[in-house]
Amino acid sequence: MAKPLNIGMIGYGFMGRAHSNAYAQVSHFFPTQLKPVLKAVCAREEAKVKAFAAQWGYESVETDWRKLVARKDIDAIDICVPNNLHAEIAIEAAKNGKMILCEKPLAMNAAEGRKMVDAVEKAKVANTVWYNYRRIPAVTLAKRLIDEGKLGKVFHYRARFLQDWTIKADLPQGGTGLWRLDINAAGAGVSGDLLAHCIDTAIWLNGRMDSVCCMTETFVKERPHVLTGKVEKVGIDDACIFFGKFANGSLANFESTRYARGHKALYTFEINGENMSLAWDLHDLHRLQVFDYKDEGKIRGWKSVHVTDNSPDHPYMDKWWVPGLAIGYDASFTHQVADFLTGLETGKPAPPTFRDALETQVILDSILESARTQKWVTVPKA
Amino acid sequence: MAKPLNIGMIGYGFMGRAHSNAYAQVSHFFPTQLKPVLKAVCAREEAKVKAFAAQWGYESVETDWRKLVARKDIDAIDICVPNNLHAEIAIEAAKNGKMILCEKPLAMNAAEGRKMVDAVEKAKVANTVWYNYRRIPAVTLAKRLIDEGKLGKVFHYRARFLQDWTIKADLPQGGTGLWRLDINAAGAGVSGDLLAHCIDTAIWLNGRMDSVCCMTETFVKERPHVLTGKVEKVGIDDACIFFGKFANGSLANFESTRYARGHKALYTFEINGENMSLAWDLHDLHRLQVFDYKDEGKIRGWKSVHVTDNSPDHPYMDKWWVPGLAIGYDASFTHQVADFLTGLETGKPAPPTFRDALETQVILDSILESARTQKWVTVPKA
Amino acid sequence: MAKPLNIGMIGYGFMGRAHSNAYAQVSHFFPTQLKPVLKAVCAREEAKVKAFAAQWGYESVETDWRKLVARKDIDAIDICVPNNLHAEIAIEAAKNGKMILCEKPLAMNAAEGRKMVDAVEKAKVANTVWYNYRRIPAVTLAKRLIDEGKLGKVFHYRARFLQDWTIKADLPQGGTGLWRLDINAAGAGVSGDLLAHCIDTAIWLNGRMDSVCCMTETFVKERPHVLTGKVEKVGIDDACIFFGKFANGSLANFESTRYARGHKALYTFEINGENMSLAWDLHDLHRLQVFDYKDEGKIRGWKSVHVTDNSPDHPYMDKWWVPGLAIGYDASFTHQVADFLTGLETGKPAPPTFRDALETQVILDSILESARTQKWVTVPKA
Amino acid sequence: MAKPLNIGMIGYGFMGRAHSNAYAQVSHFFPTQLKPVLKAVCAREEAKVKAFAAQWGYESVETDWRKLVARKDIDAIDICVPNNLHAEIAIEAAKNGKMILCEKPLAMNAAEGRKMVDAVEKAKVANTVWYNYRRIPAVTLAKRLIDEGKLGKVFHYRARFLQDWTIKADLPQGGTGLWRLDINAAGAGVSGDLLAHCIDTAIWLNGRMDSVCCMTETFVKERPHVLTGKVEKVGIDDACIFFGKFANGSLANFESTRYARGHKALYTFEINGENMSLAWDLHDLHRLQVFDYKDEGKIRGWKSVHVTDNSPDHPYMDKWWVPGLAIGYDASFTHQVADFLTGLETGKPAPPTFRDALETQVILDSILESARTQKWVTVPKA
Repeated sequence: MAKPLNIGMIGYGFMGRAHSNAYAQVSHFFPTQLKPVLKAVCAREEAKVKAFAAQWGYESVETDWRKLVARKDIDAIDICVPNNLHAEIAIEAAKNGKMILCEKPLAMNAAEGRKMVDAVEKAKVANTVWYNYRRIPAVTLAKRLIDEGKLGKVFHYRARFLQDWTIKADLPQGGTGLWRLDINAAGAGVSGDLLAHCIDTAIWLNGRMDSVCCMTETFVKERPHVLTGKVEKVGIDDACIFFGKFANGSLANFESTRYARGHKALYTFEINGENMSLAWDLHDLHRLQVFDYKDEGKIRGWKSVHVTDNSPDHPYMDKWWVPGLAIGYDASFTHQVADFLTGLETGKPAPPTFRDALETQVILDSILESARTQKWVTVPKA
Repeated sequence: MAKPLNIGMIGYGFMGRAHSNAYAQVSHFFPTQLKPVLKAVCAREEAKVKAFAAQWGYESVETDWRKLVARKDIDAIDICVPNNLHAEIAIEAAKNGKMILCEKPLAMNAAEGRKMVDAVEKAKVANTVWYNYRRIPAVTLAKRLIDEGKLGKVFHYRARFLQDWTIKADLPQGGTGLWRLDINAAGAGVSGDLLAHCIDTAIWLNGRMDSVCCMTETFVKERPHVLTGKVEKVGIDDACIFFGKFANGSLANFESTRYARGHKALYTFEINGENMSLAWDLHDLHRLQVFDYKDEGKIRGWKSVHVTDNSPDHPYMDKWWVPGLAIGYDASFTHQVADFLTGLETGKPAPPTFRDALETQVILDSILESARTQKWVTVPKA
Repeated sequence: MAKPLNIGMIGYGFMGRAHSNAYAQVSHFFPTQLKPVLKAVCAREEAKVKAFAAQWGYESVETDWRKLVARKDIDAIDICVPNNLHAEIAIEAAKNGKMILCEKPLAMNAAEGRKMVDAVEKAKVANTVWYNYRRIPAVTLAKRLIDEGKLGKVFHYRARFLQDWTIKADLPQGGTGLWRLDINAAGAGVSGDLLAHCIDTAIWLNGRMDSVCCMTETFVKERPHVLTGKVEKVGIDDACIFFGKFANGSLANFESTRYARGHKALYTFEINGENMSLAWDLHDLHRLQVFDYKDEGKIRGWKSVHVTDNSPDHPYMDKWWVPGLAIGYDASFTHQVADFLTGLETGKPAPPTFRDALETQVILDSILESARTQKWVTVPKA
Repeated sequence: MAKPLNIGMIGYGFMGRAHSNAYAQVSHFFPTQLKPVLKAVCAREEAKVKAFAAQWGYESVETDWRKLVARKDIDAIDICVPNNLHAEIAIEAAKNGKMILCEKPLAMNAAEGRKMVDAVEKAKVANTVWYNYRRIPAVTLAKRLIDEGKLGKVFHYRARFLQDWTIKADLPQGGTGLWRLDINAAGAGVSGDLLAHCIDTAIWLNGRMDSVCCMTETFVKERPHVLTGKVEKVGIDDACIFFGKFANGSLANFESTRYARGHKALYTFEINGENMSLAWDLHDLHRLQVFDYKDEGKIRGWKSVHVTDNSPDHPYMDKWWVPGLAIGYDASFTHQVADFLTGLETGKPAPPTFRDALETQVILDSILESARTQKWVTVPKA
């Protein structure tokens, strides 16, 4: 018998839509007993939140998140608001005994993140952070290959997240969709927004990072601020490059920017092992590039694996269509909900939990410290 | 105010799932007033159809399609059963004044198709055929570029639909998922199943086809039949190649097979115009390849357009995510429902209607006749 | 000890340069005992042929090919003139006991070709036709994989040779570089010029072709003729598409055109076997695409093999640079000379001989007959 | 009238062959008045150098480079020996008034390099360093596009040179072909061998580099030494990553390794400008990837420019074949000789001269110092 899991969503932007879609789709494709119910959505502007609720089928609305997190009929709080609000909401939700699904990055910094971890662990509530790229089937397949030991000793891990949407110098900071340019709302620039994804995937695939050395740049120094109406100093990092060492001895080379003309959302990673190398590109998210040194010499080459077989070979894909037919970006969220629900049913929480996400936050703090001090930084324990 | 459109679905296989997903998603992304309601689903095995209804949220089930098409509370019938049942159901549904959304190909042959066209036109019911690939954003973009006259005189149109899933000689014909190998259920092999898509896209993009010359091959001559349990002669075409001429003077080269090892669902087309060429590949459905001869000579080259901008530039994509984030195969069905609903609201039916699909059926008949007679065939008027 | 092989070259156009380069390079890379010596080059315009001789280091010039083929100090005649002159020169050269290296296609048609074969076989002179693409390392590797039996039963062979350089309607026929548009000089259009290559590779890789069905088109019906100064009817095929059957049961799909905007010299082939598929593209000639069904299911995909290892794994490449460094188009000619010389030394002639090339000529005749009669044609014995 | 330029080559390894081929080919394709003559080749082992001379057509041999550089009949000395011998030979050659073509990197370090610059400038002899990648047509085209101002403000420059041939831990250091692993012969590892190329191209395309921050790694700490027969500490860098700032404000991200399984010689660069981005990959050296922001929005995408038009549009290519036919890696050397000869004829030396190459050497010193000190280093004036 299906059992409802009542969702209370806070925020309705890009991520609010992505999460709502995941809740709506998950039971059509994944056979969990728990079924998400879109119980309530919360945002400050009543007319807008009502329209959103109507469009997605939320049963009710709130305009004060404190009311939402206190509601008895809500099982889980989904936090889709700017980063500077994550901690306060999450801690309050935990106090109210709610499960929490929080957008990434976990927090504005590691200190805040630690408080959030403490809160959910003290309250013993299920929790997860939406690092959705782990659940792109090609990325999950990479994880499996690594766990099977196919790579051997790893020498290199590289990741990039390149965009180009902020090149326009007259783009304001703050406001709908643009809070990511406002240091007070976002906490950081491309490091927290984009490299956070790269780091989460990396530590999942390649383990702990020991030390980092970083540089950041802010190309456009001043932008008009939507809230104040004034031209203000830009506080975020427009670009961020770092290298470093993983605990397994491999070298890291990471880069992110919003000034790479021609790249919309080029999140790529590549991992070079003694026996196998893997590479992936969000722009063609359904493919995993695999170089298998064990292949016969004369026909050794990078394989472009179209990760769309509806068989257990290809993670999650047995639930979708037939071979060759790609799923979209949005499916990664659906998979995360499916795994979260399964985690609730089995008692084995699906990563990344808040604690897992804190590790990424600690590395983010370390790279920004390195950029500030122009020195190598040893990554502290999360 | 939202108005319901009550759907009665017949069949629940691969396409039943794809259509159900489209009905479930469309209102979350597209602002139509009509909202599909999953009113009933029909299939012979009661336990299975009930499970399907529960999974997808259908309000009721039927095990006799005649009951379903007679139900007063159903506005539209969706036909997702093997090809040999399309005509009978569609004609009966039309008699009952139901709108019809029919899986492709329209019918077993053109004669059957004509009866279906007559039925829906006589009954004046809205109708469409699920040639979903027209609504992949990259394909729709190709249509726009052609309609803008960017290509100039067209010289060549090529299409292929290559698969490899029937190479195994011990695969049975008939049965769940395998009725496509049974001539009595499918009416044809790769021609009707795969080339039908290629032809539909082609005549939409490049206009009427005048004459064709075709060869077919059945590589595996006998297969066990699931229903009879006996090894029987295989009646379908395993491979089909044809060339011909479009009314605009351009040359056609089409091929389909299920024996092209390494290709899961390689539906590709390429159109070469005097001033611009376009190419597309279902395996990377979010990309359109564009060669623009007007580009400066020294930097002229094939452009890989990532058709994911959330702006009116890229068809349908303003309704989804942000630039660089691909949608999946399934979205093509969602788009078709959106356009079907808009067509109902505006009174301008969204193609392809049954009549449009009949043109494809006539060409399918012509190529199979050519293969049989080993002669060129002039394509008759649809 | 090195022994000279005195070359007498007739013609100095595109192919004259390509062959001269091959003679100049071969001994630097391949350890044959015979070393080509650029003894003489022949063309009608004395000033121009002298300049060419000076540039390439030919020891002498002739302006009458009959004198050249009669010269005692010439061992081998290289024929690089328009197709309508091949037969006469080759037959005369054979009479004079010269080895012959003839540009492709062998002749204007099979009848002419048979006379040439008779002439060289009667005279017992070494002979070869410059179907150079066999000796692109990636193509030779394909041959090896096929010979090793890796493909299993073959189902499909496809080839295309697409160009776009004759779209301009005011391009003249005839004259330097444009004799390929003149039916009297070329004998045929894209069929003889481009499909000849595709057919040669195909029968080498996939064996004899049994039957064909073809269509041709001449898009630009009239062009000014350089020699007469008048606008004349164009006699060549601008585009040519055919399908057919190989003796091994596999299906052929071939196409060539000079009206495919965006393609400079897109010679591609793909062969689909039960266990392995191979694909190649002249635009990236150093890569072979390999799909190996024996690979583990979850990481099965098309491999892009960079055929540049300086090891015996990759044909010819042990003679060039280091892994990853590509050779050019021109190397295919160097390899052909190397193999021709080795053939002379070992007594095992390197294919394709005139007799091998006659098979291609017979197929060319068959497809053009099919296009003319609009019927299937059984390919006669060569 | 052709005038001879007598070449005296020292060394006959991989580069000796590449340079010899360039001298042999240049006059066949490029209309310079000066024609290189292979006058003499020098190496210690007499039998081997005689064989090499015979194969390539050198008129004479030497076994003592001091004799060669003193010979009156030699105009230019080509230095193809391990890095630790460059300075001594070059300085002596300059004293003897010889032109010098020196393999890269210029020297073991900047101090040595400065002495070499002083020597050639004092002696007023023509000089160049074989940073051949500048003269791959696609790379030269990139330079043209930049010089035309098409990129606008540049934000990012990235380069990588990834190989995988030293992963085997039992590969010795020192010896034929393996001196690159011996710190005493090579001076550095991948930095001097591979990043030197990346840096040379970068400063040519994007200008001076101001500051750098670097890490290096030696994965295999000990290897048997061919000369001593003993297992010795490995002194070279196996991998090297650095970031930094160019004088134009753009950010650098460079990486090189010989431990990236699957990459034979993946030299790539990408430059992101406000209005245009460019990318190139040695594995497909005939292509330049161009993203032009000025293209119409709906068909904006990365263009794959096949840089093979035999027109002035594509640098050097008007001297080779016809559109679509790629040249090889080796042609980059031929182009460098052509430009060197033209420089001699016009009096405008073709870059990179020793002085140009010194700038790369200074950056190499800076990155290695940064790796050693774990600090940012300001790049000193060359």
